[in-house]
Amino acid sequence: MIQSVAFIGLGAMGYRMAAHLPKQFDTVYVWNRNFDKAEQHAAEYGTQAVTLEQAVQADIIFSCLPTSADVAQLLENLSLKSGSVWVDCTSGVPDSAQTLAAQLAERGAIFLDAPVSGQTIGAENGTLTVMVGGDVQGFEKALPAMQAFGTLIKHVGESGAGFAVKAVNNMLMAVNLCAVAEGFTTLKAHGVNLNEALDCINASSGKSMVTETVLPQRILNRSFPVTFALPLLAKDTGIAIDLAREAKLSAPVLSLTQNLIQAASDLSDKNSDFSSAVKMYESWSNITIE
Amino acid sequence: MIQSVAFIGLGAMGYRMAAHLPKQFDTVYVWNRNFDKAEQHAAEYGTQAVTLEQAVQADIIFSCLPTSADVAQLLENLSLKSGSVWVDCTSGVPDSAQTLAAQLAERGAIFLDAPVSGQTIGAENGTLTVMVGGDVQGFEKALPAMQAFGTLIKHVGESGAGFAVKAVNNMLMAVNLCAVAEGFTTLKAHGVNLNEALDCINASSGKSMVTETVLPQRILNRSFPVTFALPLLAKDTGIAIDLAREAKLSAPVLSLTQNLIQAASDLSDKNSDFSSAVKMYESWSNITIE
Amino acid sequence: MIQSVAFIGLGAMGYRMAAHLPKQFDTVYVWNRNFDKAEQHAAEYGTQAVTLEQAVQADIIFSCLPTSADVAQLLENLSLKSGSVWVDCTSGVPDSAQTLAAQLAERGAIFLDAPVSGQTIGAENGTLTVMVGGDVQGFEKALPAMQAFGTLIKHVGESGAGFAVKAVNNMLMAVNLCAVAEGFTTLKAHGVNLNEALDCINASSGKSMVTETVLPQRILNRSFPVTFALPLLAKDTGIAIDLAREAKLSAPVLSLTQNLIQAASDLSDKNSDFSSAVKMYESWSNITIE
Amino acid sequence: MIQSVAFIGLGAMGYRMAAHLPKQFDTVYVWNRNFDKAEQHAAEYGTQAVTLEQAVQADIIFSCLPTSADVAQLLENLSLKSGSVWVDCTSGVPDSAQTLAAQLAERGAIFLDAPVSGQTIGAENGTLTVMVGGDVQGFEKALPAMQAFGTLIKHVGESGAGFAVKAVNNMLMAVNLCAVAEGFTTLKAHGVNLNEALDCINASSGKSMVTETVLPQRILNRSFPVTFALPLLAKDTGIAIDLAREAKLSAPVLSLTQNLIQAASDLSDKNSDFSSAVKMYESWSNITIE
Repeated sequence: MIQSVAFIGLGAMGYRMAAHLPKQFDTVYVWNRNFDKAEQHAAEYGTQAVTLEQAVQADIIFSCLPTSADVAQLLENLSLKSGSVWVDCTSGVPDSAQTLAAQLAERGAIFLDAPVSGQTIGAENGTLTVMVGGDVQGFEKALPAMQAFGTLIKHVGESGAGFAVKAVNNMLMAVNLCAVAEGFTTLKAHGVNLNEALDCINASSGKSMVTETVLPQRILNRSFPVTFALPLLAKDTGIAIDLAREAKLSAPVLSLTQNLIQAASDLSDKNSDFSSAVKMYESWSNITIE
Repeated sequence: MIQSVAFIGLGAMGYRMAAHLPKQFDTVYVWNRNFDKAEQHAAEYGTQAVTLEQAVQADIIFSCLPTSADVAQLLENLSLKSGSVWVDCTSGVPDSAQTLAAQLAERGAIFLDAPVSGQTIGAENGTLTVMVGGDVQGFEKALPAMQAFGTLIKHVGESGAGFAVKAVNNMLMAVNLCAVAEGFTTLKAHGVNLNEALDCINASSGKSMVTETVLPQRILNRSFPVTFALPLLAKDTGIAIDLAREAKLSAPVLSLTQNLIQAASDLSDKNSDFSSAVKMYESWSNITIE
Repeated sequence: MIQSVAFIGLGAMGYRMAAHLPKQFDTVYVWNRNFDKAEQHAAEYGTQAVTLEQAVQADIIFSCLPTSADVAQLLENLSLKSGSVWVDCTSGVPDSAQTLAAQLAERGAIFLDAPVSGQTIGAENGTLTVMVGGDVQGFEKALPAMQAFGTLIKHVGESGAGFAVKAVNNMLMAVNLCAVAEGFTTLKAHGVNLNEALDCINASSGKSMVTETVLPQRILNRSFPVTFALPLLAKDTGIAIDLAREAKLSAPVLSLTQNLIQAASDLSDKNSDFSSAVKMYESWSNITIE
Repeated sequence: MIQSVAFIGLGAMGYRMAAHLPKQFDTVYVWNRNFDKAEQHAAEYGTQAVTLEQAVQADIIFSCLPTSADVAQLLENLSLKSGSVWVDCTSGVPDSAQTLAAQLAERGAIFLDAPVSGQTIGAENGTLTVMVGGDVQGFEKALPAMQAFGTLIKHVGESGAGFAVKAVNNMLMAVNLCAVAEGFTTLKAHGVNLNEALDCINASSGKSMVTETVLPQRILNRSFPVTFALPLLAKDTGIAIDLAREAKLSAPVLSLTQNLIQAASDLSDKNSDFSSAVKMYESWSNITIE
């Protein structure tokens, strides 16, 4: 069925995701704005570095860019093959997915919003989670290609649903990041041993991905490795809040979190890891979470 | 070393916890305000239902009551054996632990705050987590008795530290409960398939104990089984907030959560499960999380 | 200069505002979707009830509709006289003002966003405050007409600035509404005499328009007269929050207020007065502010 | 009736308040920890600088200290004249008022909590507002003395009610301070003329003491004169929040405000004026409110 696939956007995630495609498909095009990256990928993994115009002639086209605005701009003047499926793995904006899906439908193509989670290690190992919104037949057609890098791949709803789930997921993580910062400065102020406390919480109902991995691996050891930038988390929490606003829902904890992450991001260097949001709390309390 | 142990307070947790003690100790006293429960326990597990005065002559005395105020009242006029260790498994107030530890020290005894997590199933299986604050020697002396019902048993700091960790743990859970209610009503308002979304989130960074167990097992299936009452969660979040206040720390997300859980509790029947806090959100949005 | 003026939208505010125009201008057109209202106005105040197409041939055209979307829809196919100034007194959306200003500029006309405050009594007395955004020359041209019903008339910035100031004003009022609900239920829970407390606060730093008028005239006397509907306040707080979001600003107190007003609005009858937002708090606390 | 009055605590407020007493009473004792201040007051206003023990033999004893803890410590070992009334003008803690009222009742004296508002200018002019909690007969007895420096003097409830009203008043002011910081950074980000916007808001429903005086006189002109220190406002908001907590009320906007003021206070120099809380917002947004 799928004769050719393409991957557009070879950043930290995309470069690793695209590396799995040649294992399953003979024709794999890659393109990147900085074209050296594409040629390097071709040399390393046997993909073909081609022009953007050629890349988008594939049956399945993946994109993985910083924002939905980047994807929209890229797509503006491209002519796609009828019947092709564009699988956008960007952490994007639901409204934009609906607009792009409508635009591509006019050109006889299908747009799926298909953001991924699992970070660079999941991309490396091909074990990403993919949450997909859009046309069901397009989903089924693109599924074999998504399976090259994903293990859990779910169709979660119509166009925009994939982006919505990703935004809410990242928002829940952000909520835990703030709550943990507040809770652990409080515990430390009362002389509690944070490592022992963390062991207890990770065996209890307060457990979250933040307590299990972010807190021990990034914060308590003061490493703050830059794998996901704080401004991107601020952007994602903003997407989640806009979803609540559009639906006229009251989401006070999410809203407050969005505001706090925004403030923390504004106070931080642009290349700070998302986990360094706790430093805003540390500046308030003069307590270091370590 | 330990010749005798006692368990005071045979509620849903205490009844099951005390059941493990006869496996390790020959002399196990039990006492309960409603004394029928104590006699039933003796008949069922081979413990000895005795007077409160006799029970507190044990080497290690456990208590598991609704609040710290109940423990303080109980302890007021009791004379303990010198060298005995009182292990209070109540989800209590850190300040009260410090007061009681000082009072017992005057009588030559030791008070440990040792709240547990793991719910009734953990009590049943003897796999609870125990977070202990107070005198280290008292901790070491009581450890073999705590091992009867606990698997992860941690000394987390001085008097009150155990209660503090428990309060913060429950607060983190409450934060996730509110955030999940807000996030999932938002997703549903946008037509997202909640079950598929949940699978994705549970494989991603937004995962928490709430998304892994509370949401699928209590909320999405609309069962709301009453295993931990909402007013008790409101109490625990209040303890956590008071800790932040005492330390003059800014904890905006925790404070907001405490207020929301308080409101949800005020709006609910007293015997509602903690998970029914989401119903307040559902009444706002007219969206049911199912 | 101004030969003719028109007023479109004869609601509770517009009807009263338009009544002042014949005192200053010979030719005053009025139009209303429900045209009976227009004819009634003509009979009562000597204005001319005309078709929409004719009304918009005036030199100065006022509009006062529920939302910016209504104004945009109305304007879509109208041809205006070159050099005319459209003065939109709706409590509208800043982004929409910019769009409409650009559209009218193409037709040789000027769009001013000019929301008013002062309620129906201010409209009746011609003592409204008018906060105006947009072209300065348009402002100066329309000023004599605005003076018919306004006393304080300020040019606050470019297109959208007027709507922005109105939204922030209403947001500040909403913040006070929530804060007063929380503060006064707290005082009542502690047995404080609310009327005496209010007298003290109105002579002190906690004073606001809400404590001076809304609390005594609408809430404490339990009258909740419907002069400004709660859903409209929810809309206005949403506009203010969107302004903060667009500018990527952290506005935690405004966000929380927006969420609470939204929840209160969702829980209320659509025709509830904005002041009845306090009833949500009363339902939480079982305390009536009276 | 009143033969003698005393004033204890000659700080910025107390010094000016005590100055009015000799106009009405022949015998006016003053005392201050730094006794030079008392002697200076005596020289300037004809009061008598005496020992603390002598001062508290007056019929009416005023105190005006930083915190309730200071008052409690002072009172600990003093013997008062039976029938005397202690009028505490500190911005204190309601619980403490109840404790002190009970203690003084045992000694045959009366304790009134009687905090004042009106700032140093109101103290200077004798036009303070006094909100009084406690025994009604004590209130009536002390009223003539309070009238020396107060114009609006209200009995608002039982012991603690005065402190409660003061705390809630200051909390309402703090809420407006935060909301104005958020609202005006938002307006400035959108290019709005802040001075014109302020004029409009001060004629509209968003008006408050903060928009009328604090914003123009302290913030927009960047003067931040130190007349009421930010840590004291943080303390007062904490008292208000504790009142809500004790009554188990949900007060989300007040709680959030308390947390933000606490953070702003922690980030500021101890001697910063309360109005400098806006600088925390300015550091987030990189926007100066001027």
